[in-house]
Amino acid sequence: MDYTTMCPKYEAAADILGKKWTGRIIRVLLGGPKRFKDIKEQIPEMSDKMLTDRMKELECQGIVKRQVYPEMPVRIEYELTEKGNALEPVIESIQEWGEHWL
Amino acid sequence: MDYTTMCPKYEAAADILGKKWTGRIIRVLLGGPKRFKDIKEQIPEMSDKMLTDRMKELECQGIVKRQVYPEMPVRIEYELTEKGNALEPVIESIQEWGEHWL
Repeated sequence: MDYTTMCPKYEAAADILGKKWTGRIIRVLLGGPKRFKDIKEQIPEMSDKMLTDRMKELECQGIVKRQVYPEMPVRIEYELTEKGNALEPVIESIQEWGEHWL
Repeated sequence: MDYTTMCPKYEAAADILGKKWTGRIIRVLLGGPKRFKDIKEQIPEMSDKMLTDRMKELECQGIVKRQVYPEMPVRIEYELTEKGNALEPVIESIQEWGEHWL
């Protein structure tokens, strides 16, 4: 890899992943589709508003999709898209580094 | 990997890497020891104060070490420690994802 010049695509990716809670949310969703409350359960310190905002951003970026099941009561689940699932090596490498060095 | 519960070591690692500019600084330092101005050259939008603050944090965390060469004028270089170099797979996977998906 060439580290002698900065790469705009790297910067854009780092900015997406660097937003507070985003790394945690993606890790939870790698476990499969989840409801709002299931995500909150694994990240209890995050406010509802913050999770709502992040999910909207991640939907806009094509990383998460929101599925509405027209049941009674309606069921809403969030899941990773192909682009979102492609982040698994990033999340895994962060996990491995954390386990080894922190 | 177990995605059913959050891992404190993952959270700690994500918080370190998620701080603004940290991902860029580590990428630059993967290219070898650098002086302050060499780092700035690749990240021109970052202020001097911000770079100074981040370098202090990264030194405290044992990710970066500061080498002082007693020349005239004195030369100061920053380089990754073993713990810092171990972040290469993280930086590479972010780069690959960015190249493919952004």
